[in-house]
Amino acid sequence: MIIINGQIQDSIDVTERAVQYGDGCFTTMTFFQGQLQMWPQHLARLQHNCQRLAINFSQWQALQDSALSLIANAEHKSGVIKIIISRGKGGRGYSPLNVTAPSYILSCHELPSHYMSWQKRGISLGLSPVKLAMQPLLAGLKHLNRLEQVLVKQALDLTEFDDVLVCDTSDNIIEASAANVFWLHKGQWFTPSLESSGVEGVMRNKVCQLLSTLSQPVTETKQKFTVDFAAEEMFICNALMTIVPVTTLNVPTFNQQWAFSKAKVAQLQSELNTFIQTPAL
Amino acid sequence: MIIINGQIQDSIDVTERAVQYGDGCFTTMTFFQGQLQMWPQHLARLQHNCQRLAINFSQWQALQDSALSLIANAEHKSGVIKIIISRGKGGRGYSPLNVTAPSYILSCHELPSHYMSWQKRGISLGLSPVKLAMQPLLAGLKHLNRLEQVLVKQALDLTEFDDVLVCDTSDNIIEASAANVFWLHKGQWFTPSLESSGVEGVMRNKVCQLLSTLSQPVTETKQKFTVDFAAEEMFICNALMTIVPVTTLNVPTFNQQWAFSKAKVAQLQSELNTFIQTPAL
Repeated sequence: MIIINGQIQDSIDVTERAVQYGDGCFTTMTFFQGQLQMWPQHLARLQHNCQRLAINFSQWQALQDSALSLIANAEHKSGVIKIIISRGKGGRGYSPLNVTAPSYILSCHELPSHYMSWQKRGISLGLSPVKLAMQPLLAGLKHLNRLEQVLVKQALDLTEFDDVLVCDTSDNIIEASAANVFWLHKGQWFTPSLESSGVEGVMRNKVCQLLSTLSQPVTETKQKFTVDFAAEEMFICNALMTIVPVTTLNVPTFNQQWAFSKAKVAQLQSELNTFIQTPAL
Repeated sequence: MIIINGQIQDSIDVTERAVQYGDGCFTTMTFFQGQLQMWPQHLARLQHNCQRLAINFSQWQALQDSALSLIANAEHKSGVIKIIISRGKGGRGYSPLNVTAPSYILSCHELPSHYMSWQKRGISLGLSPVKLAMQPLLAGLKHLNRLEQVLVKQALDLTEFDDVLVCDTSDNIIEASAANVFWLHKGQWFTPSLESSGVEGVMRNKVCQLLSTLSQPVTETKQKFTVDFAAEEMFICNALMTIVPVTTLNVPTFNQQWAFSKAKVAQLQSELNTFIQTPAL
């Protein structure tokens, strides 16, 4: 089922700026036993993204009602809700002058079936040949301009790896194909700075909070990925997969392979399950 | 009137990847006295863009038939046709695996009314505070990820300038908000290299051909925009505005203003009118 602006329907006016320019933002969350997971954080993300892009969305209550309606009508008691906000219809070319009110689109999906086995067995990473552009004005946002991620996945689909480490055009480590990345080195957790590229994930921020609570604060870093990269453990995370251990990182062009323990990551997985206790909606 | 996949309709399935990820490309052309202008070039651009993005579009004849049908049913004998190609519906997240056949969307618009006066009087440029990211994998393409252009126009709308000069994040001159840029210095025409950013316009390439025919070949250059920038004439161009002279370039942050002659640009405008003689469709 798909809900657009409060109505059950599956098509959208082509003059919507999401269609014309990718002019909007989105977020993707799980629901479990009829409840949205980390809804306040996803709502805050959408609000922050709209504010950064100067999208004047105001239908927050209607959007939440639509999300609850989707869950109530869902086939299963758990799954995924994706919410897109488009800037609206029209405007004068790229200019958003005279655009109509923004639109919201909610859709319900199944949780990707491989995430549970990933959480248990851990995954293999390659290094993405596709590098991310550095654009501070859009960095951190989960906006609708996602061609770079499409290119990353196209390249990944040609390999045997589960996922890839993606760097920016200056070779700084940024993220995985659709998840944030953390690594442990000499007892210190690191995650990439997202000032120039990458998406600031809701789960990334939750994990940072958790590690802070555990007195293991995370250092945000600009870390070039070179043959000298060193880490004892690594994981990737997003709102759907939660925490997934990385067991190997293979970079044939460096003629190098890293193998990671998942002892500390496994502890973190178990801590996270109790840490995510969202007020019921 | 809007035609989607050969049918008159104005809404599109929200699972189309144009909506979800800006995963597609587009082109915009004029029609005049019932004929598409520079159709072979626009077709070649769409084909090249699809090939670069690995979009398997094959309905080229149907697309052309739809364009002619739009023109035949248009209110006026001249105007603008915009064509969008979306990669298709579905896929697994960002991955285009298992996506349906691509879709095409054609819409008919009026020619922006200010372009004719711009051609005659020339325009004032400011310098855009929004800089373009450098992404060689997408550079040159007219793809649907156009949030940077939206940000450029948002900033431009707050000024009194007609348009802006837009640089990349390394301060190389790239384009105007929705047009390519050329300048004349010491008898030599220059236009920015589009290896890292910018859109390779159909009109840009036509103008390069024209200047080559006139034994004034254009030099593609990586030119940083600094206070020492020097040019005697400047123009911007796209398929809708053709050639528009730039008369002034104001950069308050440099405390500097450039004034340009339009003698050579005016000659070029007149040469271009005879040079654009497309086989009738």
